[in-house]
Amino acid sequence: MNNAVNSQQSSIKAYVANVTNQASAVRAEIAAASTSIKNQALENIANEIQCSSESLKQQNQLDLRAGEKRGLDSALLDRLELTDQRIDAMAEGLLQVCSLADPVGETTDMQTRPSGIQVGKMRVPIGVILIIYESRPNVTADAAALCIKSGNVTILRGGSEALNSNQSIAKCIHTGLEKAGLSKDIVQVITTADRVAVTELLHADNDIDIVIPRGGKGLIEKIMQESRIPLIKHLDGVCHVYIHDDAEIEMATNIALNSKAQRFGVCNAMETLLLDKGIANKILPNLQKKFAEKNVELRGCEQTCKILNDISSATEDDWYAEYLGPVLAIKIVDDVSQAMRHIDKYGSHHTDSIVTNNEDIAQKFLREVDSSSVMINASTRFADGFEYGLGAEIGISTDKLHARGPVGLEGLTTQKFIVLGDGNIRV
Amino acid sequence: MNNAVNSQQSSIKAYVANVTNQASAVRAEIAAASTSIKNQALENIANEIQCSSESLKQQNQLDLRAGEKRGLDSALLDRLELTDQRIDAMAEGLLQVCSLADPVGETTDMQTRPSGIQVGKMRVPIGVILIIYESRPNVTADAAALCIKSGNVTILRGGSEALNSNQSIAKCIHTGLEKAGLSKDIVQVITTADRVAVTELLHADNDIDIVIPRGGKGLIEKIMQESRIPLIKHLDGVCHVYIHDDAEIEMATNIALNSKAQRFGVCNAMETLLLDKGIANKILPNLQKKFAEKNVELRGCEQTCKILNDISSATEDDWYAEYLGPVLAIKIVDDVSQAMRHIDKYGSHHTDSIVTNNEDIAQKFLREVDSSSVMINASTRFADGFEYGLGAEIGISTDKLHARGPVGLEGLTTQKFIVLGDGNIRV
Repeated sequence: MNNAVNSQQSSIKAYVANVTNQASAVRAEIAAASTSIKNQALENIANEIQCSSESLKQQNQLDLRAGEKRGLDSALLDRLELTDQRIDAMAEGLLQVCSLADPVGETTDMQTRPSGIQVGKMRVPIGVILIIYESRPNVTADAAALCIKSGNVTILRGGSEALNSNQSIAKCIHTGLEKAGLSKDIVQVITTADRVAVTELLHADNDIDIVIPRGGKGLIEKIMQESRIPLIKHLDGVCHVYIHDDAEIEMATNIALNSKAQRFGVCNAMETLLLDKGIANKILPNLQKKFAEKNVELRGCEQTCKILNDISSATEDDWYAEYLGPVLAIKIVDDVSQAMRHIDKYGSHHTDSIVTNNEDIAQKFLREVDSSSVMINASTRFADGFEYGLGAEIGISTDKLHARGPVGLEGLTTQKFIVLGDGNIRV
Repeated sequence: MNNAVNSQQSSIKAYVANVTNQASAVRAEIAAASTSIKNQALENIANEIQCSSESLKQQNQLDLRAGEKRGLDSALLDRLELTDQRIDAMAEGLLQVCSLADPVGETTDMQTRPSGIQVGKMRVPIGVILIIYESRPNVTADAAALCIKSGNVTILRGGSEALNSNQSIAKCIHTGLEKAGLSKDIVQVITTADRVAVTELLHADNDIDIVIPRGGKGLIEKIMQESRIPLIKHLDGVCHVYIHDDAEIEMATNIALNSKAQRFGVCNAMETLLLDKGIANKILPNLQKKFAEKNVELRGCEQTCKILNDISSATEDDWYAEYLGPVLAIKIVDDVSQAMRHIDKYGSHHTDSIVTNNEDIAQKFLREVDSSSVMINASTRFADGFEYGLGAEIGISTDKLHARGPVGLEGLTTQKFIVLGDGNIRV
């Protein structure tokens, strides 16, 4: 390694150390901030963003032009672009978080013990949250809002292609925080695109409590490899709808169609349809027509191909596939047990739904399928923070611990035990 | 590496792969088991343990004699020994877990959303839990009981010095499970003392959901280095009592005395006493006498040494120290803010208590101190699963995520979202 590289690396290390030190220094401040101060900050930031729309768009243009030069594809450039509408949506998002209940300080499960002490739990912020994301600059405002409201310090590291856009949003956040009397260091946006900064952050396990990676599977797997800090992450969305023998034909058809085709490319879309062998031939021919209207390609197991003889055969890989597009794998099963075994083996434990009028079978499925969302007679597309009433979500977790499924404000907090005594000592 | 070592390592790898495969194979079985079946298994195991006391003691003698030969110290040999009383206590512990409420399947937070779906949460087992522990063989029965009741598969790896004792307890567990109609693989006790087996287990992140290390800090830090599987762990217990100016003298004295000296060598004992400068000279001289009766050595800050002029000075290291013995550091502070800064900087976020009659100060301390247990007017010694009413504990977590503080049955479970619809699709 030559001296120039060495010295650049050590200056980035010093920069990151400064960021994490500043984060630690304001942890107690935002954790103790009242709901009204936090809401004031969010309103201020919304206001700053709306008043700064011209400069936000100017800075965004720099990113867009640099992105074009670097040959970014049009989908990525589209995600990167800040329009008036998207700027308004950011501001509205902030106000929406304002209106959510503050989870911090909530006390639950209080009970008096035989010793005389009262014991319960209090909800508190996690501490310092690192969020690593790609391209879309609105995440900068959305994530900051959720972290401020939940009393956490945030370190945001957006994609290098959005550096100027993110810095101009950061300016709005800082002004908004300071006008509410809070330190601007409560939200820090990393100012360098150098990957070394990410590596340094991922090793700062003394100062950062949790990492939330938002982006493609490649990004998340890289972060998993590199970090020892706990993650709230989302890997795959291989979701299933299972149509049981006792399903209503029309309901089952509608749910299958909606789960796959209401929107492609989303993690809660169905990727594999499972059907009991008794009901398959009553549903599949009509469903095939409807999927054809949506240009969905079907790939079936051997039995499915006997019913729909003009579709291609599914391979072993199809059962594992997250198509994120207009392709659906179909498998006919013997019963609920075989369906559940299939889901357990090939699924990603994200969202799985059963369609049936048999209450016992429905309850068995509900209890025993080990996924972050398990549904009866509903479209998998409902697995979403807004649909669940969380108000907003920082992401969907496919992890089992701490936060599972859509993660809202509560997922950004933890609970501590509290004990209220009047001089109690242990005998 | 020679061929013999190579072949031994690969046979251990094959053994561990077999263990984790068997664990995965029975995950669904114990997760779906009814409360009565699980309780039946626990009763059976308690019965087997009591009926096998002679053979348990015989096998334990083998471990004790081998330990003596290896020169284990007497404290360790004492922890290793199985007496009639300890065997009875193991059986009673199993029956106690029997009597605890089953957390699995508990449904909470159900609400109907504007879309018409009902959304809520259901409590479910985590999956496969690896527990790594040292010397005391009763952990084998205690940990197995909690994991069975919470619907989890357990892989237990005890200390090499307790291998025979643990295997004979394992035999009781297996018989008890099978007599209840459950697979014996639901609880597996590792049969080799080879460290390679631990390394292999810690890398089995596809099959093991969580690791609970129970033992000294050295063991836990080694496991943290080696594993990418989430841990529920306990590192340090640097606990504080802070006596505020508005404390009752007698109450404060009793709580300080109890927190330090009710039992030494436990993680929830006080290690540093903080006092407001206005109250220090009213409390310290009398407290010094009482601590002298308990043979507790005091080490004070400069101001403390002015009040108690025959004690030694505390160094910077003392504020970080977990003595686990009859030593106490004492520091005089200006106010609650300085006390909280001290606790944040030097403490281990385990358990901290304030003594005061000032409600505002008490609430500030309660809200803002970032520890797994925060107390008002109570001894730190109450930070314990039994005292909190959890029934039994698998350990105390100093982590913030998932489980914080004493971990009982609930800490061995997680929650999934459930959605109940009647054909709802997303528009």
